[in-house]
Amino acid sequence: MEKVQLQILGAGSAVPTKKFSHPSQVLSLREKVFMIDCGEGTQHQVRRFGVRVSRLNHIFISHLHGDHCFGLVGLLSTLDTQGRTGDVYIHSHPELEALLRPMIAFFCKGLSFNIYFEPFSPGVSEEIYSDRSLSVRSFPLKHSVKSSGFLFKEHEKERHIKPELIKYFNVPVAQIPLIKRGADFTTEDGEVIPNYQLTSAPTPPKSYAYCSDTAYTEKFLDHIAGVDCLFHEATFVQKDLPAAKKTMHSTALQAATIAKMAGVKQLIIGHYSARYDDPAELLAEAKSIFEPTDFAADGKLFTF
Amino acid sequence: MEKVQLQILGAGSAVPTKKFSHPSQVLSLREKVFMIDCGEGTQHQVRRFGVRVSRLNHIFISHLHGDHCFGLVGLLSTLDTQGRTGDVYIHSHPELEALLRPMIAFFCKGLSFNIYFEPFSPGVSEEIYSDRSLSVRSFPLKHSVKSSGFLFKEHEKERHIKPELIKYFNVPVAQIPLIKRGADFTTEDGEVIPNYQLTSAPTPPKSYAYCSDTAYTEKFLDHIAGVDCLFHEATFVQKDLPAAKKTMHSTALQAATIAKMAGVKQLIIGHYSARYDDPAELLAEAKSIFEPTDFAADGKLFTF
Repeated sequence: MEKVQLQILGAGSAVPTKKFSHPSQVLSLREKVFMIDCGEGTQHQVRRFGVRVSRLNHIFISHLHGDHCFGLVGLLSTLDTQGRTGDVYIHSHPELEALLRPMIAFFCKGLSFNIYFEPFSPGVSEEIYSDRSLSVRSFPLKHSVKSSGFLFKEHEKERHIKPELIKYFNVPVAQIPLIKRGADFTTEDGEVIPNYQLTSAPTPPKSYAYCSDTAYTEKFLDHIAGVDCLFHEATFVQKDLPAAKKTMHSTALQAATIAKMAGVKQLIIGHYSARYDDPAELLAEAKSIFEPTDFAADGKLFTF
Repeated sequence: MEKVQLQILGAGSAVPTKKFSHPSQVLSLREKVFMIDCGEGTQHQVRRFGVRVSRLNHIFISHLHGDHCFGLVGLLSTLDTQGRTGDVYIHSHPELEALLRPMIAFFCKGLSFNIYFEPFSPGVSEEIYSDRSLSVRSFPLKHSVKSSGFLFKEHEKERHIKPELIKYFNVPVAQIPLIKRGADFTTEDGEVIPNYQLTSAPTPPKSYAYCSDTAYTEKFLDHIAGVDCLFHEATFVQKDLPAAKKTMHSTALQAATIAKMAGVKQLIIGHYSARYDDPAELLAEAKSIFEPTDFAADGKLFTF
């Protein structure tokens, strides 16, 4: 089974701490690398943790607060000095291109690759990326500026053939792709062998949802229902709920409530306020509601 | 005697390494803090090394390559979240304001302090800052884009009075300020006491020169002659001279040659290429020409 790997590059929030840098993470699946958010210092973290960026072509920016995108131009510059040739696509709310194009034009002259901005609308849910293996959907969060969550989801996979039965019924090789996609098989004698006899259920497609920054809201539950892994921001503990409300962030308890309601398999909390030295308290709070919770930390790897 | 303290925040160059971040340093003297260059991640280093930024009001940018200024907007944002009220002046080549103003307007709405850009001309040497205690001069370096060095120099100080002679000649208190500034004293009997009898030489003004980025050039020697401390970039070792020439940087040997010719008291080398894991080789090379050389490292403090 193909594994999905998530590496946290920055588990902090607006003010970086000695432990936790600005938000950024990379999701690796099917030989591709996707970056989500790119706070200042992301290029440092890429180097510090040895992230392989040769296959990084798509960067998704959740919203236009500096701590989620100030690392972009620096990252692009450094990719260039390292002789990169593959193009880079930046998926973001529309305003970002006008802000960064002059910087890129001035500071990244003669880039060895192209940079394309792929704007998407923050107000609706839409498919913003698709390839042979997976798609990415955006959906609105609830924050002090327009903010978007992302759902990475593999396409439905092919059914697994049962080799011994394929052999038993003398299925011609040419028909196997159809059978993997669910077709029945008709023997030379005209007998119809139903697909379920020849195949077993496909490997379930993997899915990952990213929700940061957001206040507590249930309106995106449908989008994240049942995902293999949910990253949900947990900027505060519940006793600091007033601060969470004021800044339109979530508490760890709220993040866990969302995870539980959405029936996700695993929750990762992160985006901690600089006021907390240690995420232990946040983790304990989330676990009290939703046991399969883990905490983000700079460089930490998750596989699912 | 008032000490000057220099702290290196980033000793690396365009590509950050695990050890050395992008260029930035802070110079503290006479209760003021000045920042020189502000590469990406400078706000992280400020926090990591506990730099007191409450008195930081002036930032000097040597040239418009991203590794020397990509940390500015992030630093300004974070100063704001920390409740700063003192204004910030950015001294740089003229183009920077047009590039950063839209970013600041979008990402730093409602700042609690003002940001002023103080452009200076890269082609000439000029005084770009002055206060009661010191002045800062820019001077042209030699690089792939226009680049400026900075000379921080305290004003000439007052002469030290010799208390026993002041008493002996019955010098009135009102005249002491004049005598400290070099005036002779005439006694009631009309006898002229020359100043040198009443005073000793003033404490020499401290001076610090910053030269990065630059290829080897002797044209700014007059500006840095005899300074207490010179930071001169040493991106390469001498055996990589072709790379230094191509990128218009200096070797450690060249930096030391400049330091020796200028008769400076102390040389600090830095701005190392990412190709070197350890600055030991660069330091040894510089020391072979100019013994009082030390090497920059992230967080390292120098006092002079």
